[in-house]
Amino acid sequence: MRAPSRDAGPLAIICGGGSIPLALARAVTARGRRVLMLPIRGFADPAVESFPHRWFHLGTFRRPFRAMREVGCREAVMIGSLVRPRFSVLHLRIDATTLRLLPRLAAAFRGGDDRLLSGIAAILEGEGFVLRGAHEVAPELLMPAGIVGRRAPGAEEREDIRFGMRALRALGPFDVGQAVIVAGQRVLAVEAAEGTAAMLARMTEMRRTGRVRLAPHAGVLVKAPKPGQDRRIDLPAIGPETVVQAREAGLVGIAAEAGSVMVAEPDALVRAAEEAGLFVIGVDSAEADA
Amino acid sequence: MRAPSRDAGPLAIICGGGSIPLALARAVTARGRRVLMLPIRGFADPAVESFPHRWFHLGTFRRPFRAMREVGCREAVMIGSLVRPRFSVLHLRIDATTLRLLPRLAAAFRGGDDRLLSGIAAILEGEGFVLRGAHEVAPELLMPAGIVGRRAPGAEEREDIRFGMRALRALGPFDVGQAVIVAGQRVLAVEAAEGTAAMLARMTEMRRTGRVRLAPHAGVLVKAPKPGQDRRIDLPAIGPETVVQAREAGLVGIAAEAGSVMVAEPDALVRAAEEAGLFVIGVDSAEADA
Repeated sequence: MRAPSRDAGPLAIICGGGSIPLALARAVTARGRRVLMLPIRGFADPAVESFPHRWFHLGTFRRPFRAMREVGCREAVMIGSLVRPRFSVLHLRIDATTLRLLPRLAAAFRGGDDRLLSGIAAILEGEGFVLRGAHEVAPELLMPAGIVGRRAPGAEEREDIRFGMRALRALGPFDVGQAVIVAGQRVLAVEAAEGTAAMLARMTEMRRTGRVRLAPHAGVLVKAPKPGQDRRIDLPAIGPETVVQAREAGLVGIAAEAGSVMVAEPDALVRAAEEAGLFVIGVDSAEADA
Repeated sequence: MRAPSRDAGPLAIICGGGSIPLALARAVTARGRRVLMLPIRGFADPAVESFPHRWFHLGTFRRPFRAMREVGCREAVMIGSLVRPRFSVLHLRIDATTLRLLPRLAAAFRGGDDRLLSGIAAILEGEGFVLRGAHEVAPELLMPAGIVGRRAPGAEEREDIRFGMRALRALGPFDVGQAVIVAGQRVLAVEAAEGTAAMLARMTEMRRTGRVRLAPHAGVLVKAPKPGQDRRIDLPAIGPETVVQAREAGLVGIAAEAGSVMVAEPDALVRAAEEAGLFVIGVDSAEADA
């Protein structure tokens, strides 16, 4: 992991949805580096405006590129959720720069999430910028190894965590989501396009209707990046709201791959876990092979 | 595939939920073999009472075993959906036969769906009965190879079908459900404990909210048994209601593994597909390798 390069000028943060772009900006500025927020219209939270910023539309890349060059910014991070847009000229404002990039953009939008993101990454790099990973510029936002908070998983839960990690690894080549719910060595839910929050809501519903019957507190949310995924462009994240949703779903804990899952608000996460009585643990990817 | 054995006496049909136990009884009697319906309380549709029947509680196996012996029945089929019950003495009426089988039952209930079903299969066989597959006693209820109805998938949809079949195969070792939704080489939904209908409803919802944006008719439901699965105990099924749900989800078609997925009402399925403008195709499992 490289240290953040201060001589690279301010860090551009291309902001998708959720609270994590703001958390990243706070972490980076706390380290003494300036940031330039580039929030994407329709996706980013207006709260990011508390830092220097320039909004742009996905499809008009001239504006953010110019903003970056104006402040001497040579590095960018892409972070936050990007619900897949439909690639249509009706929904995009297209500028000349983007028109030139259109063939590459079209290819990026055709495939899975990975291809969308790596397509945007290729465009950035084609313009001479360096794409950095959030884990490089603010490693303190990464899930640490070991137990976070006071509760620890039991032997059966550790089995379920290993099982879930193996299932996620098997799904990796298909660009499917980054989380599963496992209880008693059974995969009860797999995240795909719906996202982690919707998968947890489904679990809540399956328990309510009796579709899944478990002891009152059972089941583990297991979250890990896809194998071979470019971690600069799509690092999964958890936060205090994940804990709240997991408790509502009746789960006993959350396991996330150590060093590979972002934690938006670490302190708030620990407090939420304590209040909910859930364990939160960072597990090594090698656990899946154990 | 063996021919149905008439000398084995009537066929016992252990009935879970849904319309497929009744469809099976009709197919078997149309072939000239009598049936004995053994509907499971809390799961089976009372419509199965149109055939000779004996209701029983999951947990009281003496009653169905005795009923089978009374009519000289030596073969049984298990069919229909069995939403996983909680293994608790409060929820089961336990008879002496079951008490004797309890250690084996407990083991069956602890694991995934496959283990639950194979546990029940082992109990049946331990009592001297032969467990047959629905595909053996009524092969006309199996998905045929090739296009069913008038519409055919295009080249891109065939790509998506192959992609989906490969994803299902990768998930097999984890005892996860038997269906995925794929569009543009992207897995948008994976079925686990929620079942196919709930996964299709999720797709409908993801399109409604804009979480997934696709052309008005796009995406394929791909359904196949888990690799290595004992087809006597857990054959996936589709029916006309699957077509209706797939249309609501905005999909263009349904692909099911030929010879390995049951079709509850083949004629009604074709009519529903014609009305909905969807293709329905039976694909060879080797397609996944193409």
